[in-house]
Amino acid sequence: MIYLAGQVGIAVFAITGVLAAAHRNLDVFSVLVIGVVTAVGGGTLRDVVLGAPVFWLNDFTSIWTAVAASIATFLLEGRLRNTYTVLLYLDGLACALFAVLAIHKTLGLGFGTPVAVIMGIVTGIGGGLVRDMLIGQPSLLLRREFYSTPILVGGLLFAALYEWLPQVRAFTGVLSATAIFAFRAAAIRYHLGYPDWLTVRSKT
Amino acid sequence: MIYLAGQVGIAVFAITGVLAAAHRNLDVFSVLVIGVVTAVGGGTLRDVVLGAPVFWLNDFTSIWTAVAASIATFLLEGRLRNTYTVLLYLDGLACALFAVLAIHKTLGLGFGTPVAVIMGIVTGIGGGLVRDMLIGQPSLLLRREFYSTPILVGGLLFAALYEWLPQVRAFTGVLSATAIFAFRAAAIRYHLGYPDWLTVRSKT
Amino acid sequence: MIYLAGQVGIAVFAITGVLAAAHRNLDVFSVLVIGVVTAVGGGTLRDVVLGAPVFWLNDFTSIWTAVAASIATFLLEGRLRNTYTVLLYLDGLACALFAVLAIHKTLGLGFGTPVAVIMGIVTGIGGGLVRDMLIGQPSLLLRREFYSTPILVGGLLFAALYEWLPQVRAFTGVLSATAIFAFRAAAIRYHLGYPDWLTVRSKT
Repeated sequence: MIYLAGQVGIAVFAITGVLAAAHRNLDVFSVLVIGVVTAVGGGTLRDVVLGAPVFWLNDFTSIWTAVAASIATFLLEGRLRNTYTVLLYLDGLACALFAVLAIHKTLGLGFGTPVAVIMGIVTGIGGGLVRDMLIGQPSLLLRREFYSTPILVGGLLFAALYEWLPQVRAFTGVLSATAIFAFRAAAIRYHLGYPDWLTVRSKT
Repeated sequence: MIYLAGQVGIAVFAITGVLAAAHRNLDVFSVLVIGVVTAVGGGTLRDVVLGAPVFWLNDFTSIWTAVAASIATFLLEGRLRNTYTVLLYLDGLACALFAVLAIHKTLGLGFGTPVAVIMGIVTGIGGGLVRDMLIGQPSLLLRREFYSTPILVGGLLFAALYEWLPQVRAFTGVLSATAIFAFRAAAIRYHLGYPDWLTVRSKT
Repeated sequence: MIYLAGQVGIAVFAITGVLAAAHRNLDVFSVLVIGVVTAVGGGTLRDVVLGAPVFWLNDFTSIWTAVAASIATFLLEGRLRNTYTVLLYLDGLACALFAVLAIHKTLGLGFGTPVAVIMGIVTGIGGGLVRDMLIGQPSLLLRREFYSTPILVGGLLFAALYEWLPQVRAFTGVLSATAIFAFRAAAIRYHLGYPDWLTVRSKT
């Protein structure tokens, strides 16, 4: 079931990646590249930094999922545009899922919780960061709405539960993913972001 | 001979990399960095993702070739500009060569053909993508002319021949590289690109 | 002492990274990401290319240092702006230190001096390059003042001393770092850069 959820996450990332790039004059192959990079870029970065075998090398399903989702998005682009808000929530769900799976994987490789939290963030936002650089649009780091902060908060929650409440370890992942998604969904719904005194420009 | 061809490919990539960056106000050292990154970036990315030793670490010839080609291009930049069309074809040839060598290497490391085709594309366009991000110019993914599609087509041809016609395996590489180059050369000569209905913008 | 110097270098890189991004509308978490990436990005790139374990995975101090320095910079940003020139010199010192440590590490892993010099440059400028791409500002490769050239010169000095004067090996690192810093400090103080005939644009 986790595996299936992972594939849904890959598909959602590919879809939102393609839609985020749709205003550029991209042909179908570039769309494919952007979709696949957005979908698997974060996890690839995580594995390369951890020195672990890159996850899609030996199970190619993720790539096929990303390819299929990218092409479908290309074909249905006009229609999906109207469902963009739905996709934002799905993107938040995929972020939550990937972050928690990455934390899990990193801990399983024997690294400590701080490394795991960082890998959660890298996996959650890495693909989007690379996508934005590839198509030359302002990075998602410049957005005003909370995007990566929920992953940090959920990651810290995961670390705290993991370290101090080992008896609920079976639920640590679900609880943290829920927290990330709830935080992100609230940010989408109510346009939440950092107050002015927590941004640089407004202070100067 | 393959080795020599590889060095020629490195040199051509360095030359086109420097020329692509020449309109920015680059000094000779930045020119060198751009040239070398364009030339070896794709292969480096491939090796890092595959978890293989990066190819230039133990045979530094590629770096020297890239350095020499970059400096020569810097010195002769005014003159090379007039030969830009010739260089486009050479770039297509280098792309074809690198893609096929990368597919070969990936298969030799025991990975399947889908991974190999992806690595062919990564090696063929990776250096150019990083170069465009470094100097802040529109990515080659945004070009209208076929650039990476020929590599995909040639890579699929390689995979098909490799899987289904093992008896011609000695020629698989040459056939695929020829196909990539012929496709790319036609795209340069006749300004071929995807029709409107296969680009995103035109559909909306 | 080298270890402590390394941590000071990390902090300085985080500070200058945050200040370089301060004109963008960044919130405190994005500031953190930029600061940490600038501080550890170059060394991470080095280790990934060398196939060595990434340095901060097993000693997380560097990350905490970068986090603390980034947050402190965020809080004190208005005041630090007036000390920007001081920070430029500190940045030069950090560059010099990191480059030499990277060369040392690379040689210690059994690679030759050419690889080591490249890794010195990658470590010295890699973090800044990734930062500039992430926030979408002109790359430090486009600056007119000497920035990476001092690292090349100091790296070549290191290589020459290392190869030809093994009897002074105890001082090779200090001498090379001093040379890099002196060159960079002179470039800051007197706005030194390449003459026109050593830049591309001016030749055409």
